[in-house]
Amino acid sequence: MSSEQILATYHIETPFPLEQAAETLAGEQSTGTFLRIPGETDELREQFRAKVVKITPLDSSTTPGLPGVRIPKGAPVPLLFNRAELQIAFPLASVGTSLSTVTATVTGNLFELSEFSGLRLLDLELPLAFANKYPGPQFGIPGTRKLSNVYDRPLVGTIIKPSVGLSPEQTAVMVSQLAEAGIDVIKDDELMANPPHSPFEKRVEAIMRVINENAERTGKKVMYCFNISDDIDSMMRNHDTVVQAGGTCVMVSINSMGLPAVAHLRKSCALPIHGHRNGWGMLTRSPHLGIAFPAYQKLWRLAGVDHLHVNGLQNKFWEPDDSVVKSIEACLAPHLGQQAIVPVISSGQWGGQAVETYRRTRSIDVMYLAGGGVMAHPGGPAAGITSIRQAWEAAVQGISIEEYSHTHIELRQSIEKFDKGPILRVME
Amino acid sequence: MSSEQILATYHIETPFPLEQAAETLAGEQSTGTFLRIPGETDELREQFRAKVVKITPLDSSTTPGLPGVRIPKGAPVPLLFNRAELQIAFPLASVGTSLSTVTATVTGNLFELSEFSGLRLLDLELPLAFANKYPGPQFGIPGTRKLSNVYDRPLVGTIIKPSVGLSPEQTAVMVSQLAEAGIDVIKDDELMANPPHSPFEKRVEAIMRVINENAERTGKKVMYCFNISDDIDSMMRNHDTVVQAGGTCVMVSINSMGLPAVAHLRKSCALPIHGHRNGWGMLTRSPHLGIAFPAYQKLWRLAGVDHLHVNGLQNKFWEPDDSVVKSIEACLAPHLGQQAIVPVISSGQWGGQAVETYRRTRSIDVMYLAGGGVMAHPGGPAAGITSIRQAWEAAVQGISIEEYSHTHIELRQSIEKFDKGPILRVME
Repeated sequence: MSSEQILATYHIETPFPLEQAAETLAGEQSTGTFLRIPGETDELREQFRAKVVKITPLDSSTTPGLPGVRIPKGAPVPLLFNRAELQIAFPLASVGTSLSTVTATVTGNLFELSEFSGLRLLDLELPLAFANKYPGPQFGIPGTRKLSNVYDRPLVGTIIKPSVGLSPEQTAVMVSQLAEAGIDVIKDDELMANPPHSPFEKRVEAIMRVINENAERTGKKVMYCFNISDDIDSMMRNHDTVVQAGGTCVMVSINSMGLPAVAHLRKSCALPIHGHRNGWGMLTRSPHLGIAFPAYQKLWRLAGVDHLHVNGLQNKFWEPDDSVVKSIEACLAPHLGQQAIVPVISSGQWGGQAVETYRRTRSIDVMYLAGGGVMAHPGGPAAGITSIRQAWEAAVQGISIEEYSHTHIELRQSIEKFDKGPILRVME
Repeated sequence: MSSEQILATYHIETPFPLEQAAETLAGEQSTGTFLRIPGETDELREQFRAKVVKITPLDSSTTPGLPGVRIPKGAPVPLLFNRAELQIAFPLASVGTSLSTVTATVTGNLFELSEFSGLRLLDLELPLAFANKYPGPQFGIPGTRKLSNVYDRPLVGTIIKPSVGLSPEQTAVMVSQLAEAGIDVIKDDELMANPPHSPFEKRVEAIMRVINENAERTGKKVMYCFNISDDIDSMMRNHDTVVQAGGTCVMVSINSMGLPAVAHLRKSCALPIHGHRNGWGMLTRSPHLGIAFPAYQKLWRLAGVDHLHVNGLQNKFWEPDDSVVKSIEACLAPHLGQQAIVPVISSGQWGGQAVETYRRTRSIDVMYLAGGGVMAHPGGPAAGITSIRQAWEAAVQGISIEEYSHTHIELRQSIEKFDKGPILRVME
């Protein structure tokens, strides 16, 4: 154990010499600097100290990425802010295997250091000890496919909108229509948990009644991701409510809940955990700060999520395609011997993105959520669902959706209604 | 209930007309846009929809604060990014009083919206219903003073460093020296929770043995903030361990634990909760993104923290004094009829900042933590502690520490050793 390491890779920016800044970071997050105490040998210090593994210098900038950076004494004017990729090794013997402590160690106070005008955690390599402590995803891709009875293609889903104001009965009416239309997955909006107008228990009861009825008739049980996010005891109670009603998925707003809450749920969870990452933009949208998805998803997988949101290609949000592709790939790669998780593709999806998504990821093991793409299709929700399945058929066959739409009317209608061309963004 | 509102104030930046961007934000976080459903009247929509309350235009910029902003169709080139303060009202009837849902609502997906090149939550006004659900701080300032038996001056404390590598026995030796020296408060480092080399139970046992012994002799029990951060069940077990050993405070890394974990702890907590905000830099250091402290601290106070870290004036981190002063004032203001909490001042403090801290906040109801300022004082920890108390005496009497040090040798030594002059930072 004593030689095992947690490896963290950062993008840094600093007006200090790179080696000096790197040592500051390593020192801040391990031994501290104040004084020698009795019995503290060099060997002990060596064993427990965080170490600089590698510094790869990159470009530099004449303006700082973040405010508050300290001006080095005697630094040449104008200041130059040097960028680098930095790898730090934290001894497992110092940190232990608690998700909260590893978070405090590899992120924590680092972002406050005035030696840096930019600091971003890019990736993490964790020792196997973490997988021994945390069981990770319980259902993953095969468990999700089995529960929803969908094989050989992406799971097609939608979100109940409007996200607020609907009563349990109104929601159930929409669910009934979608189940009739052949949807695979429906999820609560993250804004809809247990509000006064749609109490959680009543909503589960109303929705599962129509889903169970539909399943008895058709043999296919729609996977409904109920948003159980709440205080800890209420979350656990909500989970039990879903299980008792015959539901097949629970959803959690992971950033508002926290790693310990999700790991706690995982301990006695009977269903796949649908990880909604709302709030993620705050942690990642600045290029100078925060966390990149490859590092982030590893922690949540250990905590036990089975599905994790990744946005989608050509999404309506800020995120560029390259970033989304990397996120999908990250979810689909095994981690510490634990199974892959289902990337949940959403945000402005309607099927038009299927070909490019498949071309770049070569995977159908995704959940593909479309709001308007299902609900606002000219032929109604059933045609919307069909159009998305057709788009994925085209994708897998390597055919453009334009060509495939010649013989598939729902896809053609969908192109006519939803294809607005690419969204132009400022990506600097 | 139906007319109560959650008011959220944002700083925004957008290339779109301000009214249009504001409506996008309000729509995204409430009704959505896809379709009318049966029974959805205008009145219902009106009741549940988030509303734009006020837009106060500010300056504009020719460069976007964040990447990924969408280019408005037909926008003049070069693009202008307009800034404003924006207030949005979310009906309580839509959101409910769960801390996780309110977080998903007032932050959540907003940061991902491509209509904005900057979005930052500045402040929150929550209805009283939240205080009815969450009891808030249990001990606050009077409870903390009573347990530590410190009145009429700030609580003076320190942190155990090096933060990793120490065994329970080595830690207890340091605690013993500090208790002898007359310290009021000692806290675990946030990196020290339950690592292999210092198992939590053994550490509590070793530390409380010397603290209890010292208390029997002197009548003064040092408040030790034990870092109980861990998985939910372990955190609760750690809490019980501290209570059984006669400890008087538990510390939690709030950002790694999450609001529901802290609210869960508060339900059965017998001790003040010391809220360590490591990770906070990630949420606030970019001026274009994240959360400002006035909003942040309101949520954690509802969850039940009694103490909350705020950095300190002239700190070693990135944060400017004005921001620290606002944070101290925020902690000291009552909220929703619940008591004030103790601002925890730290980061490069040694007493030299006491006069300015008091001049700007007029309060002694703070916890003042010094690492090197106590441990590396030329006269030893006791002199370090004395020097800090002297600095606060000078502050309250309105005397400069230079003048006060003429008759107070510990303070003079402290100035000679620690006064390095102000740290120069780039604040753009």
